[in-house]
Amino acid sequence: MKSALSQLGRRTAPPPVSWLMSTSLARPRLISLAAGFTDNPTLPVDEVRDLLNELLSDRGTGEPALQYGSTQGLPALIDLTAARIQLLEQKAGNHSADKERFADRLVIAHGSQQLLYLVTEVLCDPGDIVLLEDPTYFVYLGIVQSHGLHCRGIRLETDGIDLASLDKTLGNLKKNGALPRLKMLYAVTYHQNPTGTTTSFNKKQAALDMLRHYEKWACHPIYFFEDAAYRELGFEEETEPSALKIIGAAERIIYAGTYSKPFATGVRVGYGLLPQPVRDAVIRVKGNHDFGTANLLQHLLARAISSGTYDVHLKLVRRRYAEKADCMVSAIRTYFPDVVRWRKPTGGMYVWLALPRTVKTGLRSKFFARALDHDVLYVPGQICYAPDPRRPRPNHEMRLSYGNATPGEIKEGIARLGRVIGEWLVEESPRRLSLRPKACNGGPSSS
Amino acid sequence: MKSALSQLGRRTAPPPVSWLMSTSLARPRLISLAAGFTDNPTLPVDEVRDLLNELLSDRGTGEPALQYGSTQGLPALIDLTAARIQLLEQKAGNHSADKERFADRLVIAHGSQQLLYLVTEVLCDPGDIVLLEDPTYFVYLGIVQSHGLHCRGIRLETDGIDLASLDKTLGNLKKNGALPRLKMLYAVTYHQNPTGTTTSFNKKQAALDMLRHYEKWACHPIYFFEDAAYRELGFEEETEPSALKIIGAAERIIYAGTYSKPFATGVRVGYGLLPQPVRDAVIRVKGNHDFGTANLLQHLLARAISSGTYDVHLKLVRRRYAEKADCMVSAIRTYFPDVVRWRKPTGGMYVWLALPRTVKTGLRSKFFARALDHDVLYVPGQICYAPDPRRPRPNHEMRLSYGNATPGEIKEGIARLGRVIGEWLVEESPRRLSLRPKACNGGPSSS
Repeated sequence: MKSALSQLGRRTAPPPVSWLMSTSLARPRLISLAAGFTDNPTLPVDEVRDLLNELLSDRGTGEPALQYGSTQGLPALIDLTAARIQLLEQKAGNHSADKERFADRLVIAHGSQQLLYLVTEVLCDPGDIVLLEDPTYFVYLGIVQSHGLHCRGIRLETDGIDLASLDKTLGNLKKNGALPRLKMLYAVTYHQNPTGTTTSFNKKQAALDMLRHYEKWACHPIYFFEDAAYRELGFEEETEPSALKIIGAAERIIYAGTYSKPFATGVRVGYGLLPQPVRDAVIRVKGNHDFGTANLLQHLLARAISSGTYDVHLKLVRRRYAEKADCMVSAIRTYFPDVVRWRKPTGGMYVWLALPRTVKTGLRSKFFARALDHDVLYVPGQICYAPDPRRPRPNHEMRLSYGNATPGEIKEGIARLGRVIGEWLVEESPRRLSLRPKACNGGPSSS
Repeated sequence: MKSALSQLGRRTAPPPVSWLMSTSLARPRLISLAAGFTDNPTLPVDEVRDLLNELLSDRGTGEPALQYGSTQGLPALIDLTAARIQLLEQKAGNHSADKERFADRLVIAHGSQQLLYLVTEVLCDPGDIVLLEDPTYFVYLGIVQSHGLHCRGIRLETDGIDLASLDKTLGNLKKNGALPRLKMLYAVTYHQNPTGTTTSFNKKQAALDMLRHYEKWACHPIYFFEDAAYRELGFEEETEPSALKIIGAAERIIYAGTYSKPFATGVRVGYGLLPQPVRDAVIRVKGNHDFGTANLLQHLLARAISSGTYDVHLKLVRRRYAEKADCMVSAIRTYFPDVVRWRKPTGGMYVWLALPRTVKTGLRSKFFARALDHDVLYVPGQICYAPDPRRPRPNHEMRLSYGNATPGEIKEGIARLGRVIGEWLVEESPRRLSLRPKACNGGPSSS
């Protein structure tokens, strides 16, 4: 008897993160620098308790919080979110942002993850194409894989995607008649997961110009999906406006943000600011998903923001991550050999490292197994690259997170990893000399 | 320029319920007997406040509640849910239910609605077929429509689906070679939405036997999807075991339940007990949807159940709905003419009524507009029927909800509706006489 699963059901692969998680559970001494979990000691336990106490001490506010709401989201939270995005834009020098029009295009979701899912679902059929940063947010790759989409990776520079790489990719798709299948360019534009890169406004503008130029061969809008999940997690005041500043953004920019990572990941609330046809479709489909985001969570967030609690907490969280980033960077300086390349993060939760290209760091690599033997876990860089027929996935990088680990764990984890790298390089040098032809077989990666 | 939407994005129709909701907002005097909202005065505002206070007064319990969890759900809530289902089974005389094996097959979701979505998504491709009760839960029809599925409605009797109708439908599908596209039979088995019907265990068993018989031509499992959303909302102790009692249920029964409706709809937590291949696929896809259900809500529910608060509240809610059902029934007896057929509910939130077949009650009917003019809203029966090429959708029924309306509103709403019906029948009788040939044109409905 065959399986009754749908094509999507059969196609959807287990996420690599679930394997990473189960691995960490099985090793009690393990230090995970892999998890995307957030910092425990700064979780706003007292603040959430007080806010919920207020909310639920009055039936006038408590009842609506425990009742169904509307699918697009709590009007008060939508208004606060619109005002918040407007303020972020103003701080970044964009004074044309209009709160009223933002509110008309907002949808609240169970985390920005749900928004990513809904947008992909309403835009992409199997066989459609999305452009992704090289490397990109690997959980998004799960959505892409599940929907049977084709990918093109766009080389990432220190200030965002390489425009020449984007142009060349679009030109090739045009030549092959594939532009009608291209739906969007997805980019994590602030303190990117996994590399920490922040995309300059100029690049966002140039990228959208380029997409619009090629639209005439697509015969439909090609959207720029700006995932701003880490926008509020910079260590300094953010100075780059979002793509919402671009003229015509209302028609082409899909903008996603989240309250979960900065506030509390157990409170899954994110949002999307969407072009009208996308928003209409997303709301219809979200109605089928869940009727709307849990009202209690939305009321909690609305109260956290309007009372100022959210902003006070945000300052604390940003300071905390800045300190833990410093801690990781300083440990890397101490314990890692100089051949390891990396950049100091300016926000977010991750450090991205490149080892010499001969060191394979993937999930099935001996190096990964060795690190596990030393009770330290990282995210292999390879899983952050979209499958792209034009290149093999680079396999010599890693993402390290200082999100959940304590400063002590960060230091010890980096020391362990430093030992693994050091030993590996020592063992490898003679092998490289004797096996040069074989070592070259895989070819250099394209990153 | 064309739309960039996917086939699903373009196909998904706006839910009728959103139109009903916006209609009610525009009329301040309107009494809505349409909404699926729950009773406001019994919402457990104090209880939730106290539970959250406890949870968040200790960082040891507070931090995990505000952090990410695992995709399948909080282990404590899964165990409590398994034990709860086992207890329900025992009370219904099924002593073979095994809590341990239930726990292995459970997934927690953002309401049982998300579970319905996920199951449909992992089982059904466009063009696949599902069997549905005639009438059925109309929000599920939105999922079915969005996924491009074909439907067959199975006639509903007072104790569940008509087995002869099921057999005939399966036989026809076999004859047409369509069984390989048939994925499941979906039934709301306790105090069904919309008719209030509870399916007898014997019928569930016979239905599954029949599905299994026809599987050899489908070449894959045909699942029985038991939506038990109203199982805990009976006015008396429930005596029907679920389909989980059937031998082999672990391989064929998809069982969904919810904590939202009985406890608080603003706390969106439901669950599914699934055959292993379905569960694996659902967890993978849910990972892409949202990584897992908001942990704060799961910790809250786990505490509500383990402390006994949930059960105390459940008694209150059941008594309240029983009282409001009585109130509606007594108003119907007073204000509705005898030609209106209906049954006294034994649980849930709805009364289903059939008017004479000549009275069209659909969304675009003059009768519906007249009711709206009288400031009373109902759910037209027609939207609760799946599109089925074998019959027109019956158009002379309505679903009335006593869930959200107060006793005063129920009485007044029924009185208004009674006037509309009374006037309509008086006006219609001479028309029927003079227009008999035309009135017969639509043909009799099959319900």
